[in-house]
Amino acid sequence: MQTLEQLEKKAISFIEEASFDRKPTALFEPVEYAMKQGGKRIRPLLVLIAADMFSFDLDKAKYPALAVELLHNFTLVHDDIMDASPLRRGKPTVYQKYGTNRAILSGDVIYAMAYEQLINCDADKIPALTKTLTSVLINVCQGQAYDMAFENTTEVSVRDYITMISLKTGILLAGSLKLGAIVADASKENMNVLSEIGLYLGIAFQLQDDLLDCWSDLESFGKVSGTDIADNKKTILYLLTLENANEEDAKRLLTLYSGKPADVQQKIQEVKSLFEKYDAKQKTEDMVNEYMNKALKSVESLDVEQERKSNIVAFIQKLLNRKK
Amino acid sequence: MQTLEQLEKKAISFIEEASFDRKPTALFEPVEYAMKQGGKRIRPLLVLIAADMFSFDLDKAKYPALAVELLHNFTLVHDDIMDASPLRRGKPTVYQKYGTNRAILSGDVIYAMAYEQLINCDADKIPALTKTLTSVLINVCQGQAYDMAFENTTEVSVRDYITMISLKTGILLAGSLKLGAIVADASKENMNVLSEIGLYLGIAFQLQDDLLDCWSDLESFGKVSGTDIADNKKTILYLLTLENANEEDAKRLLTLYSGKPADVQQKIQEVKSLFEKYDAKQKTEDMVNEYMNKALKSVESLDVEQERKSNIVAFIQKLLNRKK
Repeated sequence: MQTLEQLEKKAISFIEEASFDRKPTALFEPVEYAMKQGGKRIRPLLVLIAADMFSFDLDKAKYPALAVELLHNFTLVHDDIMDASPLRRGKPTVYQKYGTNRAILSGDVIYAMAYEQLINCDADKIPALTKTLTSVLINVCQGQAYDMAFENTTEVSVRDYITMISLKTGILLAGSLKLGAIVADASKENMNVLSEIGLYLGIAFQLQDDLLDCWSDLESFGKVSGTDIADNKKTILYLLTLENANEEDAKRLLTLYSGKPADVQQKIQEVKSLFEKYDAKQKTEDMVNEYMNKALKSVESLDVEQERKSNIVAFIQKLLNRKK
Repeated sequence: MQTLEQLEKKAISFIEEASFDRKPTALFEPVEYAMKQGGKRIRPLLVLIAADMFSFDLDKAKYPALAVELLHNFTLVHDDIMDASPLRRGKPTVYQKYGTNRAILSGDVIYAMAYEQLINCDADKIPALTKTLTSVLINVCQGQAYDMAFENTTEVSVRDYITMISLKTGILLAGSLKLGAIVADASKENMNVLSEIGLYLGIAFQLQDDLLDCWSDLESFGKVSGTDIADNKKTILYLLTLENANEEDAKRLLTLYSGKPADVQQKIQEVKSLFEKYDAKQKTEDMVNEYMNKALKSVESLDVEQERKSNIVAFIQKLLNRKK
């Protein structure tokens, strides 16, 4: 069994050492660019954690690991067009750098390249792998559709939000663990428990992202604090505040979220003080802990030796303590 | 064995009777819209022709038939964004009707839904089916990338053009026949010959499309004659003319193709007379016949009883004689 650190290194090296550049350059240069922007590579890491839990050859787990990272980047490339996001990790997004048309087309081919990785796996595993990757992508698209719909309505509940982030973020983390379990021939029960863990992790991860966007600094998070507020993004903090605020404060929050004022810092400060007034920060932290604990509780019911659970536990704890 | 007419009806009914509508509506309404715009459904038909050639249960060939039509529509939805096409079959394109963002996202989910169909097939066939669908899509993206690149260069040869349409159109017709052959457990040799037939057919089909756009009328073709010329599209007619024209005529053609004049009819007439002067129409018709004959020659080498070849032969002849 490998240590978490060894698995992290392996996940990163699988992506960094792979080449995504083919002909024509017009199509594949944006693929290489999208795939080589660094990052924690947590999805491939989850594939490796699951595969290693069942002693599977990690060099063969490379294929599903690459597949989930390709799938993830495919969604980022297209989401950045839809959200008109200029930057990702401090660098121009694919559509900013190469134009919308090349970003659409390169995104499409990245998705196909994810399946191409799966085809390298043992034939008897390919049906389950294909089925999982496909259902993940359909769910992610549903999540993105809800996310887009939320922008144009004031009728979003905390429950709606959890559903949306489950689909948009949770399902891919669940799918990553599941793909690792499939190639490693884990039992159906262990596969389902791992999916459950991934889903809880994904929800906690996204809620934490909302917190870190609001209470973090440029150096550690890679972007300016409060960008979600500046963009009128309906995060969990916003929804919890709106749900609990008195009429006057709710009205004020809606007003603040209805435009993009010249003095954005002033707006961010005022919104943050409303978040604090209604304890949204604490409530969100509680929710993060709740989902992390659900994940840890699910780990207990995995039918493997105790020591084989150490990496997924360490991963959960590390994710909980992240500052970016 | 079924008649070609029976197979045509079956291909159409598989698509028309399928439902693509799920929740959320924002995501799946455009899918249903894209999939229900009618048409000849030649890709699903090719799946059925191949499957029926080897006596495969057509109700089970439904899945790859749906898969290729989904894949085809996925490419149309995204291509229409990239090409800024307002109409398809006389109706607003998906991006015109639902906006670019919903068209990108709905296109993505259509692609996933193609794999979803394949998963319904027998498990031992899924690796080959997945591999084929994936490689088709990568090729189609390469074809579209070349097509987009051709818009911005004068350095396109007839050979480049044939490569581009092979990838963009031929490979999907080849893949359709191949998927039908895979589910029906055809031999590797027959599979390869069918792929070859599809490729030749696709090239002939696209060349004929160029002809029909130029010498056809609104009623039978569903669009105004000469739109490719109006859009400065580098068709085979344009390339053959440019390759053979004297310096003066070549210069004139380049000039005509460098802008969008107010009097588009005048431009279309002048370009068409240049096409005729250099025999581009006849040469293209010869090329169509050449590729059709290659397809028919490949049919001969299929290792099945003669009568089992009648549908693919009838299909090739019908396609050759189409007026729209």
